[in-house]
Formats: sequence, C-alpha cells, structure tokens
Amino acid sequence: MDFRTIIAKRREGMAHSKEELEFLANGAASGDIPDYQLSAWLMAAYLKPLTDAETGMLTVAMADSGERLDLTGVPKPWVDKHSTGGVGDKTTLVLAPLLAACGLTVVKMSGRGLGITGGTIDKLHAIPGFSSDLTPKKMIAQAKKIGIAVAGQTNHLAPADKALYALRDVTETVSSLPLIVSSILSKKIAGGAETVILDVKCGSGSFNPTREQAEKLADALVSVGKHAGLRVFAGITDMDQPLGRTVGNALEVAEAIEVLTKPEAELRSNTKRFRELCRYYGAIALRVSGVASSSGEALERIEDTLKGGRALEKANEWIKAQGATVDFGDTTWIPRAAVQLDLHAQIAGCVGKVDARTIGEIALDLGAGRKTKDDEIDLSAGLEIHVKVGDLISQDHKLATIHAATQELADAAMARLIHAIQVQTAPIPPRPILIRPA
Amino acid sequence: MDFRTIIAKRREGMAHSKEELEFLANGAASGDIPDYQLSAWLMAAYLKPLTDAETGMLTVAMADSGERLDLTGVPKPWVDKHSTGGVGDKTTLVLAPLLAACGLTVVKMSGRGLGITGGTIDKLHAIPGFSSDLTPKKMIAQAKKIGIAVAGQTNHLAPADKALYALRDVTETVSSLPLIVSSILSKKIAGGAETVILDVKCGSGSFNPTREQAEKLADALVSVGKHAGLRVFAGITDMDQPLGRTVGNALEVAEAIEVLTKPEAELRSNTKRFRELCRYYGAIALRVSGVASSSGEALERIEDTLKGGRALEKANEWIKAQGATVDFGDTTWIPRAAVQLDLHAQIAGCVGKVDARTIGEIALDLGAGRKTKDDEIDLSAGLEIHVKVGDLISQDHKLATIHAATQELADAAMARLIHAIQVQTAPIPPRPILIRPA
Repeated sequence: MDFRTIIAKRREGMAHSKEELEFLANGAASGDIPDYQLSAWLMAAYLKPLTDAETGMLTVAMADSGERLDLTGVPKPWVDKHSTGGVGDKTTLVLAPLLAACGLTVVKMSGRGLGITGGTIDKLHAIPGFSSDLTPKKMIAQAKKIGIAVAGQTNHLAPADKALYALRDVTETVSSLPLIVSSILSKKIAGGAETVILDVKCGSGSFNPTREQAEKLADALVSVGKHAGLRVFAGITDMDQPLGRTVGNALEVAEAIEVLTKPEAELRSNTKRFRELCRYYGAIALRVSGVASSSGEALERIEDTLKGGRALEKANEWIKAQGATVDFGDTTWIPRAAVQLDLHAQIAGCVGKVDARTIGEIALDLGAGRKTKDDEIDLSAGLEIHVKVGDLISQDHKLATIHAATQELADAAMARLIHAIQVQTAPIPPRPILIRPA
Repeated sequence: MDFRTIIAKRREGMAHSKEELEFLANGAASGDIPDYQLSAWLMAAYLKPLTDAETGMLTVAMADSGERLDLTGVPKPWVDKHSTGGVGDKTTLVLAPLLAACGLTVVKMSGRGLGITGGTIDKLHAIPGFSSDLTPKKMIAQAKKIGIAVAGQTNHLAPADKALYALRDVTETVSSLPLIVSSILSKKIAGGAETVILDVKCGSGSFNPTREQAEKLADALVSVGKHAGLRVFAGITDMDQPLGRTVGNALEVAEAIEVLTKPEAELRSNTKRFRELCRYYGAIALRVSGVASSSGEALERIEDTLKGGRALEKANEWIKAQGATVDFGDTTWIPRAAVQLDLHAQIAGCVGKVDARTIGEIALDLGAGRKTKDDEIDLSAGLEIHVKVGDLISQDHKLATIHAATQELADAAMARLIHAIQVQTAPIPPRPILIRPA
C-alpha cells in the first residue's frame, strides 16, 4: 500500500477502508510513514473530516497499534471515567476511590498536564511517595487486590496516537473532532476499557468554548464509541468557571481530601459544587455498571460510601499501594506556598464572571502547570477561588487567594486576576454544574 | 513569527501577508521550518487555494529565497520561453537558436525529465560533448558573446521551490494551480526573466487533460505573473498526441536538426506540425520583445531566419560554445538503437487517436526517460510516430517505429503501442496544434 493514495483519498473526502486506517495507524506507530506524509494527511483530515464509521475504525486501529492492557481475571464491573480536561478538575482523586469502595474496579491511565488543563498524574504526585509508574502487570495485580490502580500513560499503549498527537500539536490540526475523538477513545480501548464515562467540559477553561461544540464532541464520542465497540456515556458540565475551589496540584489534593473527609454542610460553596459533580458521575457509573438499578439508589449508595468513610479508607489503601508515605486522614503534610495574597471585591454586587481560562493561565504562570512538555511544576502554587457566578457579595468580600512561591509572582498573578473575576450590580443566576446529562 | 499561525490562517482560508509568505519561502529554503509543518501548509493550500495576489507574493518570495541571476549588461531584448511539459517536446532545440539568430538574447535554465515528460537538458545531452553545467558567470558571459545559453537548473536558484516541490511530490499536493504557477514562475524570476512566453500543454500527455484545466492554468500564469511583476504570454497547444514525429532524446535532436536544415516541404507531416509550433511561438517572441511590429512581419522574419540557415548557424555556435564535439550540419553521429520495429495499420481508415500519455509511458519503459530521479537514460531509445489524428491511411500503412535496445523491450513496447494508435472507419478532422493563442 502506498500512503500517497491514502492522502489523496482523504484530500478528496473519499471513504477510507479499514485496511487503509490500519496501515496509517501502524505506519504512524512504527515510524514507517514519514512525518511529512502524516501531517499532510492530518491537514486533509482536518478539512475533510472522517465520518463516525471511519473514526471508529481509526480508533480501533490506533488502539491496536501497540499492546492492549489485558484485564482478564480482574473482577468486573470495570469502569473508566475520563474528563476532556479543564481548570481545577480533580475528579479522579475523589471518584476513583469512591467507585472502588462501591465495589467497582477502577483501572485508569491518566495524563500529565499541558497548558491550562492540569493532569491527574501531576496532582497525585503532590502526595509524598506516590508513584504512577506502574507496569501493566503491577497495575493488574493491584486492581485485582484492592479494586483500584491509576498509572501514567505508557508508550506501549496506542503509540499511533502518541505519534499523531505530537504532529497535530505542531501542524494546527488539534481541534478536529474525529481526531480528538479517536485520540481519546483509542487510549481507552488500549487500556482495556469496555465502558467509558466521559465528562465533556464546556466553557472558556476547556477546548469547547460553546455549548454547541461540547454537544458535537459528546455526540461524536458516543457515536464513534459505538462504531469502535465501546459503551460510551458522555455528560456535559460547566467549565466556564473553574471546577471546585482550588486550582493547583497540592491545593486540589487538599480539596479532594475535604470532600472525602467532611460532611457536605461543612464544605465551602465551590467545593460543594465539585462534590455535586463527583456524585453525579459516581451515580452514572453505578447505574451503567448494573451495581445500582435506579438513579435514586445509586445516589444513596454514593452518599453512604462518602459519609461512612469507606471512600476515604479506599483512597488511603490506594495511595499507599502506590507508595504514598502519608495519609488522607491528615493534611499537615500538604505543602504550602511561601506567599498568599487575597483579592477582595471593590464593590458590593453579584459575581458576574469567574473566567476559567484566565485563571488557568494565571495558575500556569505561577508554575502550577507546564507550558512545554519539559517544564518543572511547583506543586504548592495555584489559586483558591472563593466565589462563583451568581453569588451575592458585600464590598471587600474575599474573592480569591493566590498561592505563589514569591511576592513577585503573586503580584503578577494579581494584576491578571482582577480582570478574571467580575462583580456587577445586576444579579445573575448561578450556572448549574451539569449542562447536559450523559 | 510562528509558522503554526501561518498554517492556521491557510487552514481557515485567510489571506497571507507578504511577510508571512517570505517567512514561509525562506524557512523552506533554509530548512528552518520542518518538513512536517510545510506539508501541513501545502495540504491546507491545496484545499484552500491561494488567491492570485497571494500566489504572486509567494512567487516573488520563492524567487528571492536564493540568488537571482543578474542579467545586467546582457544585451536586450531577453526572452524566456517555457513549456509546461509534454511528450516529444523539443521546442527549445529549434526556438532558442532561431530567436538568438533573430537578435534576441536567450538565457534559459532547463530541467531534466521525470515521468512521461522529457527534459530539454536530457535531449541536449544526446549531443556528444554538450555540457549544461554552466556557472551563472559562464552563462552570462556566453549570452553576452553569442546571445544564447541554456543551463541545467542549479540549487542556488529558488531553493524554496526545490524544497516545496520535493514535499508536494510525496504529499499529493502537486496538482494545485497556485502551487504549480508559483513553482514555474519563481524559477523564471530567479533566472532573471522579465518576459516569459509559456506554452501550456493540453491533453493526455500533459498534466492538463482538459481544455478547461489548461485555460485555468494559462489564465493563472498570466494573472499571477502580473502580481509578481512579470510579463507572461501563455498560449495553449495540443498535447493529446505527441509533439512532432519523435519521442526520445537522440531521435528528437535529429528531428530538431531536420527543422533547422530542411525546407518545410521536405519535412514529414508530424515534423511540419512541430515546425508550426516553433514558428508560432517564435513570432510571439519577436512581437512581444518589439523586434517585429506585426504578426506578419514576425512570421516572415522567422521564415527567413530558418530558410537562410542563420538559425542553424546559431545552433552550431551555441552547442559548440557549450562543448559539443559535433555539428548540426551532419547527423551521422546520432546514436541509433539496436532494434527497430514498425507498427502497421491492420485496416484502412482514419487515424482516430494517437495517445500521447501511453506513448510517453512506452518511451519511459524503453528507457528514454526517468521513472525515478536517479534512473539512467538510454539516449537512442524512443518512438517515431508517422501519423497524426485525422490522417487517412491505407491498410498496412506504417503507423510508428519503435527504437529499442533489445528485441524484448521492442516487443513489450509493441504490445502497448497497438492500443495507443487507433484507426477507425469514420473520418475525423485533424487536431489543430494551437488551441488558444497567447
């Protein structure tokens, strides 16, 4: 097969065969197809998008371009919950042990963060001793024993996606729906998933600024998943303001611990909103895996597991299995940045905007994330956002706290932060966390 | 400037600035922009074509990506005649000395052949001793002295075109009008041209199979030329059947010599057709350069120069200046293939088709051209086509002669040739050589 023929077909918007997409995925993974030909195909695919059926075949071909994680013998039901990425998204830290405590098996590969969206693996690395460097064998053994294992992505799984993603990043072909969908789902399939719950983020802090885009992505994930033989449930949630109260690795771990340890009534309002998202996706996981037969039953079970402390127990079991030298029952180990700087409201009124994108960018500037692949992260840097859209506040109300390594970094962050949170005189309703149910 | 921004603009069909196109051309020439980014841009440019104004700016930027040949001091008028490439196209061998003999200066870079379209440089190399390896300095000195110099393309001129062309070839982005036009014209500008006469070929033996495509290309060449500050005259001529009687390097040199030495009445019919094309473009060159003030005067001058032997004299002066050890007045030195095999008509009738593409492919299989860049050429291999569309012939009329190195090659050529020339019972009018005047 000559890859030029495959490029020409894409260029003309002609349908690819399964064999052509396998040739592409295997050639990308092995390096047999040169980058300059892959990137011509990627641009053609951007401008002449693949159908859902083609994307499904590409997804499976990419999953099969390397090893697949073999979960045979791991107790069912398995479930994989994945977010398309947002600012302050620490859901896995709560949801994974919560579901494992409910009797599900959670085997999950997570990425490192790049740009404004943090990575679960980076947050977990804020826990002293925690290692995400599990071999597939170790992962499976741990999952069999305690029902939960979260590892960093390896090069063995879906290497075609790794090659194509690296090229998309430098050829302006990232934001193509079929390419996004195949990238997400191929890693899930390679990771052994059969059922995937997807949290599609919508708003300025995600790559779906509009509801229309988020709906297209959610629909494509479900449709392509079907073509690829995967059960996909995709909900859409708000990412116009950050998720929860905290943005930054250690800060987010601390917030996750609050949800696992404290009664809902004691949580601050943004943390309650984060807890609501965990409850929602937790209940879906119990329903789609057959552990609960109704939404009511599922939610009750989630509440019981949180309140009864079993989720916290499972979390401790989990992090210790992966090397943690600390406990979630105690938070004194959490590193604290040298400088804290508060932003107060200039006027009384209603919070009109808490811009997730700008807050994500500020966190990045503070060192909480990576601008390029090789950047070092400052685990204690980040922000706390004390308000959310729709909150009625008095003058001088504390809107946010900057956590920075130096006064200079804190001041620079403040200069941007004053524009990210807007207080207005006209009241505005709060934004629901759930935009469209799965 | 970040090339990703330029890729994104092209992807969205947004207009490029002059600076962006210069950044592209210089980055392609220097290698600073990696191939995988250039090929993403090329595919975007294929699917979201550049406007004529953008193409004009790209053309100049490509010409300026390397040295420009400086023709200061070379006697005017200069003229450059270029063909878009066809089967049996030996026009330069007659036209260059003919125009030089009429008082014009012909300084020309010519390419080597690849695929079914032969290259002028390969034909010239069939002349013993002839060298196309002239430095710019030598070229200009020779042009000053005798009014004519034809050299092979160097890497110094329009290196951006060289880089982009190599990528287009392997990324299915060759057949894009703006990319074709900028490739042709950038080399002309870099070669010092101010006025270019372009022979746009139309038919199966060219890359413009339809008249519509040829007209689009001719119009684009003229329009983009204007934007790039170049005077372009583009005619469209027939390439559905081969040009002239011969296809193959030494055979074509022999045919060119016939035109330079023999009165028109003594030429065979296909060679007359080739002579007509030389006359036509020769007359245009005299008119646009101001040497003749009317078509009639120009044609008269062309005829006088051919008949009076001054074109032949100039041709000998030229080839000797470039190292030839032989003379055009004599043809005994022309190499002859070991095997000649004739094709005769099975039936009486009218010649309905002489398929230039298939004949070009047969010549390629005989070794007259290159399938890949590094192929060796058999200078004596090729074909003579004795008939043209519209000829009325009797049974057993000699249609063509194969010139091959071995009987095996000749037989394989014959198996294809019988399908390339069709004789039918219904009469059909001859195809005019000129489809649309410049």
